[in-house]
Parts: sequence; structure tokens; C-alpha cells
Amino acid sequence: MFVFVLEGIGEVVAGDDLAALIAGAAGTRLEHGDILAVTSKIVSKAEGRQVSAADREQAITDETVRTVATRAFPGGVTRIVENRQGLVMAAAGVDASNTPDGTVLLLPVDPDASARALCAALRESTGLRLGVIITDTVGRPWREGQTDIAIGAAGVAVLDDLRGTDDAFGRRLFVTVAAVADEIAGAADLVKGKTSGNPVAVVRGLEHLVNELDAADAHGATRLLRPIENDMFRVGSAEAHAEGFSEGYAAGLAAAAGDAASVAVVVE
Amino acid sequence: MFVFVLEGIGEVVAGDDLAALIAGAAGTRLEHGDILAVTSKIVSKAEGRQVSAADREQAITDETVRTVATRAFPGGVTRIVENRQGLVMAAAGVDASNTPDGTVLLLPVDPDASARALCAALRESTGLRLGVIITDTVGRPWREGQTDIAIGAAGVAVLDDLRGTDDAFGRRLFVTVAAVADEIAGAADLVKGKTSGNPVAVVRGLEHLVNELDAADAHGATRLLRPIENDMFRVGSAEAHAEGFSEGYAAGLAAAAGDAASVAVVVE
Repeated sequence: MFVFVLEGIGEVVAGDDLAALIAGAAGTRLEHGDILAVTSKIVSKAEGRQVSAADREQAITDETVRTVATRAFPGGVTRIVENRQGLVMAAAGVDASNTPDGTVLLLPVDPDASARALCAALRESTGLRLGVIITDTVGRPWREGQTDIAIGAAGVAVLDDLRGTDDAFGRRLFVTVAAVADEIAGAADLVKGKTSGNPVAVVRGLEHLVNELDAADAHGATRLLRPIENDMFRVGSAEAHAEGFSEGYAAGLAAAAGDAASVAVVVE
Repeated sequence: MFVFVLEGIGEVVAGDDLAALIAGAAGTRLEHGDILAVTSKIVSKAEGRQVSAADREQAITDETVRTVATRAFPGGVTRIVENRQGLVMAAAGVDASNTPDGTVLLLPVDPDASARALCAALRESTGLRLGVIITDTVGRPWREGQTDIAIGAAGVAVLDDLRGTDDAFGRRLFVTVAAVADEIAGAADLVKGKTSGNPVAVVRGLEHLVNELDAADAHGATRLLRPIENDMFRVGSAEAHAEGFSEGYAAGLAAAAGDAASVAVVVE
């Protein structure tokens, strides 16, 4: 696998033709099976998702569909939320870095649709079978530091389902489904960096993951979003504890009042 | 960045000299600044961390220092725990894939120490300035699929702290600390795969992350473990809710009994 950045894309502004900018920067360097990892920031800029920094807190609220956890820090509150795109991230993904002074960026409205349009345009203009992943940077529970993940994808499998294949001992692998799109996003981040002004990397050597835009496994990065009902960490520990405490308190009062019916209701 | 696997390492058994096996498989292909991503499985095998599969559940219990979340599934219970290595993972990292029939593998006792010994031996035998990362595969909250992370590291920076550097607009980056060792582990997984029997990948082009074994930032992968007191997801939502409910129930009963003192005790 070979990963390199496309220099010379320069600053992106609302209305820019990203496919043309990327194709221009790539020149003749792209090949069949290449996967382009594109920082969501430039997609947001091209789509005009810039808002005034003065409205940042309101923007975070507007982008939030569900608060997962909050924690106060000196000077503010960290809000971990599920945003309109279904992603669980701090500040709903509203971003103040690498944006012009006085502005913040919202994530693309539909990163999979953005990836699909970009991939289709790049395949058209280059005649090459390419994949596109749109990346963003997130924190993780239990681990220090941040990694890049895939928030949009087109023309590339985001999960490599190894269940049903055999391990080196001929035993079936039952639970392994590799989140390859997230690993590709992380690999691209290693060469793009955060400060270099290189928003696009090319990942070569994974053509087995590149598929047709209408392939059965071309479901985009939304496929990487775990349904909340399957998630054991759907809210923060403190939030879940507080919710349980208030429910338990009401149940305790009701029990003391001998109101068995309401206990059953509260407890169930 | 260029990532390739080292073929021909073959099956590893207890007592094997991993450094010799890897150096032999690499031949003359290694260069200054290369980072070797080594699957923890072969480190465990070389260290004789194999136990009988019949003892799997007991082994998970023995490796567990703290239960984070549990969920029943048809035929068993998924246990997300913090293990002796400080890692939060399913089944404490006890692994039944790519192991001989009737056996399971425990993680290395001290993956950073294993990485350090391996890195020192490889630097000695090759005369090259190399880094070593020991990888394992984990699931994540909120995201489908699994990714490889760094559970051990030596001779390489695991975090790339960009705080205090400038973004492309000359504005300071305040919160970005890239978990580069985890991104390297993921990049290596893309070429190693899970079934190919290629337990070692070489990552070339990140020599800026390779440091001295005794460098100030050579703190190993334990540096990637977030202290529990800083973690908003230290236990599962259901576990936190249940704990809160029982405390609240007791507080409700006490309040109904008009025992303000015990309320204060329970609630505080």
C-alpha cells in the first residue's frame, strides 16, 4: 500500500468544483483502484457550510440530534453529541481549525452524497475506477488522542466482512468485520497531517476494496454507524447514572408509599 | 508512506526468537526509520501465553481488572472489560482466532516491554533505527466494525501532539493530538489482513515519528490509555443506569422515611 498527498489544491471556497481541483492537482498521477481520502473540511467549504464563529454554540445545538455526554471544563462545556449525520463527536463536528478568522465550519449535510458526487465526477473526468472517502477527526472513549475516520464514502467498501472466511488454522472467523474505511482514513491522516494544508491523500494498493458506485456493498459510510439500540455506550456514564438515580428515587418514594403499581411502572 | 508485509515468518511457537524470525524474513528490505507493526498474536505465542480453550471464560475473568459493560447474546455473554494491560476490550483480549485447536491466547503480559525488547534486538541485529508497534484488533463504541490499535510501542512516538503548532491560517491548534500509533496499526492491518498469515507489516515514510528507545516521548502505548477519571464512558450506559437506580431507590426510601441524614449520605 502506497499513500501520498496531492499538493497544490490550495484554499477552497464556496462553489468550487472539488472534482476539478483534485483532478487538476493529481494530473496524471492517479491509477485504477486508487482511493482518494478527502478531508471533510474542504468539502464543507466547497458546499458553503461556513458560519460565523459568533454563532458556534448555536450551530452546535442546531447540528445536535441527541446529547450523548457533557463535561464542563474551565471556560466552557464539552458536548459529545450525535449530530445530523448520525456521527457521535465532540461539538457535533463543528470545526474552528483551518477556517478563516471569525468563522466555523459545519460538516457536509450528507457526506455520502458528497462522496458519491465527487467519485462520479472524478471517474468521469479521469476514466479511472476510483474510490472516495471523506474524512474527519474524532476522539474515542478509553483512548488518548484523536484519529481520522470515514464520514462519507463512495465506490469503496467501508467494511471488510471476514466472517465465514478461514483463519490460518482453517478455523472460521466469526466476529471479524474490519472497518477498512476508518483504517484508510487514519492511514491518509498520517501523510496529510493536520497543519500541512494537504487535504487530499491518495491510497494505492487496495483496489480489492474499490467497487461500483451502485454495488451492493456501496452503502457509504453510514454503514459504519452502529444503531443506538445495539450500542452499550449510547450515553455517558454520568448521564446514565443520573437518569437511573432519578428513576430509582421516584421508585423508592413510591415503594415507601406502598404504591406497588407505580413502582412496577417506574421500574419496568 | 509505503506499507508492505514481511512474508515467510511462518508459525510462531513458545520460545521462538521473534527478532530473529522478523530479521530473517526481512532480509535486506528494512531501512532507517521503518516502523514494524507486529500482530500481538505472534508475540503472545512466542511468550507462551497459550492456554486451553476449555479455560477461556476463566482466563477472561483472570485477565479482567474491571468490568466495563456486559451484554447477553444467544449462547453467551459479551464482556467488555479493562484488562491487566489497561486496555478496554471484549473478552479482555483473550483470542481464539489463528490459534491451534483447543487453545486460546492471552495478550502479552507487558506489550510495551515486549515491543522494547523486540525493537532493541532488531536495532542491534540490523544496525537500523527502527520502531516497533504491537497491534491488536478492537471494537469501538458508536462505530461498526473493528480496527487495529497499538497495544505496545517502542522507538516510536505514539501521539503526535500538534497543540501549539499553527494551522494553515496561522491559528493555533489547541486540541489536536493525533494518535499516530493507532493509525499506523490500522494502516498495517489494511495490508496484513486477518486471514493472510502475515503477522508483520513494515511502515515506511514516517521516520519523523521514530525516536530513541530512551527518548522523552518514548513512553510506549500505555500513553494511549486514557485515565478512567478523565473518561466519560468508563462504564456501559446500562450499568451506570442500574447503579444510579439502586442508589436513587435507597435515597427515595430514606427520604420517605424522613431520614435526611441518610439521604445526604446516599446522595453525596
